[in-house]
Amino acid sequence: MSDLKTKILAAVSEDLEAIDGALAENLAPHFDLTREVAGHILFGGGKRLRPLLMVLAARLCEYAGDKAATFAIIFEYLHAATLLHDDLVDEASVRRGKPVANTVWDNSTAVLTGDFLLARSLSLAADTGKLEVIRTIARITEMMSQGEIQQLNRKGDLALTEKDYMAVIECKTAVLFQGACRTGALVAERNATDPQVLADYGYNLGLAFQMADDLLDYTLDSAALGKVVGADLREGKLTLPVIHALENAGPKDRQTMETIIRNPDFSMDDFKTLIEMLRAHHGIRYTRETAKAYVARAKGCLDGFKPSVTRETLCDIADYALERKA
Amino acid sequence: MSDLKTKILAAVSEDLEAIDGALAENLAPHFDLTREVAGHILFGGGKRLRPLLMVLAARLCEYAGDKAATFAIIFEYLHAATLLHDDLVDEASVRRGKPVANTVWDNSTAVLTGDFLLARSLSLAADTGKLEVIRTIARITEMMSQGEIQQLNRKGDLALTEKDYMAVIECKTAVLFQGACRTGALVAERNATDPQVLADYGYNLGLAFQMADDLLDYTLDSAALGKVVGADLREGKLTLPVIHALENAGPKDRQTMETIIRNPDFSMDDFKTLIEMLRAHHGIRYTRETAKAYVARAKGCLDGFKPSVTRETLCDIADYALERKA
Repeated sequence: MSDLKTKILAAVSEDLEAIDGALAENLAPHFDLTREVAGHILFGGGKRLRPLLMVLAARLCEYAGDKAATFAIIFEYLHAATLLHDDLVDEASVRRGKPVANTVWDNSTAVLTGDFLLARSLSLAADTGKLEVIRTIARITEMMSQGEIQQLNRKGDLALTEKDYMAVIECKTAVLFQGACRTGALVAERNATDPQVLADYGYNLGLAFQMADDLLDYTLDSAALGKVVGADLREGKLTLPVIHALENAGPKDRQTMETIIRNPDFSMDDFKTLIEMLRAHHGIRYTRETAKAYVARAKGCLDGFKPSVTRETLCDIADYALERKA
Repeated sequence: MSDLKTKILAAVSEDLEAIDGALAENLAPHFDLTREVAGHILFGGGKRLRPLLMVLAARLCEYAGDKAATFAIIFEYLHAATLLHDDLVDEASVRRGKPVANTVWDNSTAVLTGDFLLARSLSLAADTGKLEVIRTIARITEMMSQGEIQQLNRKGDLALTEKDYMAVIECKTAVLFQGACRTGALVAERNATDPQVLADYGYNLGLAFQMADDLLDYTLDSAALGKVVGADLREGKLTLPVIHALENAGPKDRQTMETIIRNPDFSMDDFKTLIEMLRAHHGIRYTRETAKAYVARAKGCLDGFKPSVTRETLCDIADYALERKA
């Protein structure tokens, strides 16, 4: 484990425990099949990053109540609901090294359990008693579904630009990070803190996180991530490393890359050729540097807060987004 | 067209126009594919019964604002989202005489558009500014998804009882009718009216409506309803006519029915035999009478209101639930 990861986990171990406790408790009253299917995804090894961000944002804004972990699970539920519906969309068969819910059960059960988790997250949002929180959740859900539809619609589209890519990752990842941090500030009810500052931290972190995630598809073996290398490409998902390399390559290399990308059954040799091209045309480096810039922006949002363990942990999490291996 | 239907349509024509206007307007700002897929289901010939109930409930409770039609579309969105996710669940291929969205586009697009409509309904609920409305919407969504999961889980289960059936139709239909009527009362903000009274009207109407709908599967040709006769049975959905007949039949007839039900590819002759048995063992009559009793209960809930066109229309709608042919 990296030093940074060890440091973060030590700082948040009680929070993670509280979040896991709230997740288990909240799921308990529901009937067997729902609990089982929801549990499959909720307790399948997630990092709890989104609820953790809410808890830390609330603490940074001096939240005085004892409901942070309970409200935080809104964001794990939203995330899990998205995964349940995306696994169907992606026709993925493995997530985090485990078979996805729609192959263990069926599409219908996976979709309906996703709906149930969406509904639960809404109920929890209503429990905050704050319309602003509810509006935030509604906006997240709208943007995420629109982002996924857009991504689906542009599947395999080699004309995808960096701007298109940014719009997709904003919807599919950044708005949830943004909403989790914003909600932390909202429940804290400290007028001294503008929720937008925390929202901006989350938004920039979310963009960096997704870029780093997209890089992993081109830099890692599948064992570490519990997913197949090149999976994004096989599904027709063009991400920044590829988009940037395509934009920078000359006609010949571009042609070579396009041929590989257009064939969903590309061989391991093809894939290695592609990775070489991504390196040669700076797709990897550019993506890493762009992600790094967003991490810096995220951390910069926290400058106005006085130094504290919580502020440091939020900065560490931002740095870790770049170095994580899974 | 029946006299009752003509009378209802005349009474609510302006409301239906306002609802359709609000639906079109609300969908307009969204991008092409979402609008197209959502439009396919939203403008595919729905009766707008749920939003209409909200508008009428609000009027009965003397709502003075001009947002009734706008808020009412929450319930058409919820309904449409459910249809989009159910058509996948049911593996249906035709709805209201048109191919279902997941065969025109694909499962993923249908699911994501359903998510988008859920999210939009939540945003609209937040626009009411009333936590009680939001809680109502959250509860509806939770119950509906749980009801569908339960139904899926008991697919083809010949041990299903009337009580199990009631629990399923409560979740899948009655809570939405209930929530629409309750929301009408909530937005009206007249303390003189207990929202529960309207909620009870909607709940009882919803139960009657679903029973009548389930009867249609055994009494009508497919052209009138735009669906295949016996479709419920082919999907392994046991409804009250069958459950009651199975409970009342002797061992021999029960055996005959079970053999037909267990074979999803039953012939038209098998189906005719089954309908005869449903009649012989009072499955049809019992279902109709039970539905009638719920209609009477629904109408009874409105006794406390002074006579008005709106009250009369709500009573007419309840009566029409029993006589409708599609």
